[in-house]
Amino acid sequence: MKAAVCYEFGKPLVIEDVEIDQPQAGEVIVKTSACAICHSDIHRIRGDWGGQPPIIAGHEAAGVIADVGTGVSHFRVGDHVVVSLLRSCGRCFFCLIGRPYNCEGRFPQDERPRLRNKEGVILAQGLHTAAFAEFMVVDQSQVVVISPEMPLDRACLLACGVITGWGAVVNTARVEAGSGVVVIGAGGVGLNSVQGAALSGAVKIIAVDMLDHKLEAARGFGATHTINAGSQDPVAAVLSLTEGRGAEYAFITVGSSKAITQGAYMIRQGGIAVIVGMPSNQDANFSLNAHHLTYGRTVIGSPMGSTRLSVDIPRLVELYRQGRLKLDELISRRYPLDQINEAIESTERGEALRNVIIF
Amino acid sequence: MKAAVCYEFGKPLVIEDVEIDQPQAGEVIVKTSACAICHSDIHRIRGDWGGQPPIIAGHEAAGVIADVGTGVSHFRVGDHVVVSLLRSCGRCFFCLIGRPYNCEGRFPQDERPRLRNKEGVILAQGLHTAAFAEFMVVDQSQVVVISPEMPLDRACLLACGVITGWGAVVNTARVEAGSGVVVIGAGGVGLNSVQGAALSGAVKIIAVDMLDHKLEAARGFGATHTINAGSQDPVAAVLSLTEGRGAEYAFITVGSSKAITQGAYMIRQGGIAVIVGMPSNQDANFSLNAHHLTYGRTVIGSPMGSTRLSVDIPRLVELYRQGRLKLDELISRRYPLDQINEAIESTERGEALRNVIIF
Repeated sequence: MKAAVCYEFGKPLVIEDVEIDQPQAGEVIVKTSACAICHSDIHRIRGDWGGQPPIIAGHEAAGVIADVGTGVSHFRVGDHVVVSLLRSCGRCFFCLIGRPYNCEGRFPQDERPRLRNKEGVILAQGLHTAAFAEFMVVDQSQVVVISPEMPLDRACLLACGVITGWGAVVNTARVEAGSGVVVIGAGGVGLNSVQGAALSGAVKIIAVDMLDHKLEAARGFGATHTINAGSQDPVAAVLSLTEGRGAEYAFITVGSSKAITQGAYMIRQGGIAVIVGMPSNQDANFSLNAHHLTYGRTVIGSPMGSTRLSVDIPRLVELYRQGRLKLDELISRRYPLDQINEAIESTERGEALRNVIIF
Repeated sequence: MKAAVCYEFGKPLVIEDVEIDQPQAGEVIVKTSACAICHSDIHRIRGDWGGQPPIIAGHEAAGVIADVGTGVSHFRVGDHVVVSLLRSCGRCFFCLIGRPYNCEGRFPQDERPRLRNKEGVILAQGLHTAAFAEFMVVDQSQVVVISPEMPLDRACLLACGVITGWGAVVNTARVEAGSGVVVIGAGGVGLNSVQGAALSGAVKIIAVDMLDHKLEAARGFGATHTINAGSQDPVAAVLSLTEGRGAEYAFITVGSSKAITQGAYMIRQGGIAVIVGMPSNQDANFSLNAHHLTYGRTVIGSPMGSTRLSVDIPRLVELYRQGRLKLDELISRRYPLDQINEAIESTERGEALRNVIIF
């Protein structure tokens, strides 16, 4: 099969033929139909989170089940599925307390490599998925069946960007109708926090970004106010929009320690600041004044929207079917696999909400 | 009346005669029976939290109602009461959402000074109470009636140290039976977090302190494990006691940015670190790695145990009556008002759980 391999951090991906294993017990092979490019892929192939190349990235995917391993009972060849990096064993401490996104189980793909190039060099399976390839071998917990009527190029967005942004609002923070929300970053994740807040009935949705065209997009997704952080102090601007108290909730969807600190200062006493985006290792330390929190504020991390795939993906598909969840508007451009480097560069330049590779 | 006045930060208090106002509308005058010395008083009179002397500190008090202002209907002269610094208007945004401890109302004592020395110099009412004095003039929301059978020298402890430590566990974090808890700091507040956790049914209660005699006291209050942070790395020690995951909850009861960071690293994915103690202004900034939180950890501040006085004080009095809440054991020594400087120095040296001034 063809795949886009990262042989050196920061260099263009190499499109080449790659060998993929047969599925082990509990695994499925999915023929990739579409895979969006997420900033986490870029962090991964730029070396921002450590690790070693060669690696195949890509983790926001959808496709069709092509093969199943032993012990796979919920999926059949031909099923349309969303494929996510989230995997869960169903038996560990965290799975059993309803936090499958914190699963500490081990999987066949941890034990032995599943991808090799023609020379037999092992290719790491980036983010447990390696979706920049024509086929993926993943654990059955990473896939969710969707209706064949759901277009796969839009379905793939559900696998990461949508659940991360939407889930932070709906699952992690449980935003209630009538509340006031700030979303820092109006990109592929942030817009989904904006529409999550709108769907949850928030009455004040303040989007913060450095780029006016992203703020304009945020309005389309339900933002009631926008702040360009390049031209005003975003903390002061939020306070002035919220009677000086701050908002009930802030979602920091950009991976930046500065934005995390700003987000924490945008919430009122009793408010909740949610860390959604993952900063690079170099920028991961943020600082806060303890007195600010002592008055009853919360900072919480949202592990991929606290998503339970089999619960959340069907809900999102139904919201899309009802015309209430925007997905079409998230796609900036579609690319074939052999133009993936262009797609990545465009994403890196901040031009795109989501660029999608179509197989 | 006699009072202990701070004329210069860091200097001994001066015992002298002081003038106190009549109660305004909604206020009561309480004849002080007992007032414990809290580390917040020491922060206040050492200048750690800014402000200007002269000031009268003291805010962990109990006494007897001596006079009531107009519009006070729930209290009568002779009522035994606990007197706290927490005050709430009952009408503002935060009072109405069930967070009276975040009240943003204004009160008569904000409008005009209530205490003066013989030369007519205004004496600030420290922490809204000024309980290092024979009488206090406070808002009616700051007092809660208790049974005359409840000894006032123990009742005073409920006003701050107990509710702060216990409330962080019971109200802010809502610790559930069976869970694992770390308490950093085994002083007057920390011991109440320990006994709050024990009363809540926590099965693992790990106390962390630098002083062995405080750790010994923590065992008496329900700690199942103790860690002397002076002789071992407390984070590593907690991880090794919790299968490498960390505890469900950590309560940071010492006012130290380093302890806050340590507490955050002691909790498991999905766990909650609660900031209970207030660091000095100079030591208020703490730092954290965002990735650590991204896996679903929470850092939350507990504003004086998220206490609603009229809800929590009666519960605590009843727990004491049932023999389930330890108060007697919290009192290290009793002092008359004219030995208050000795009592403060002893507290400052870390010798005492609580030193109590008896009037």
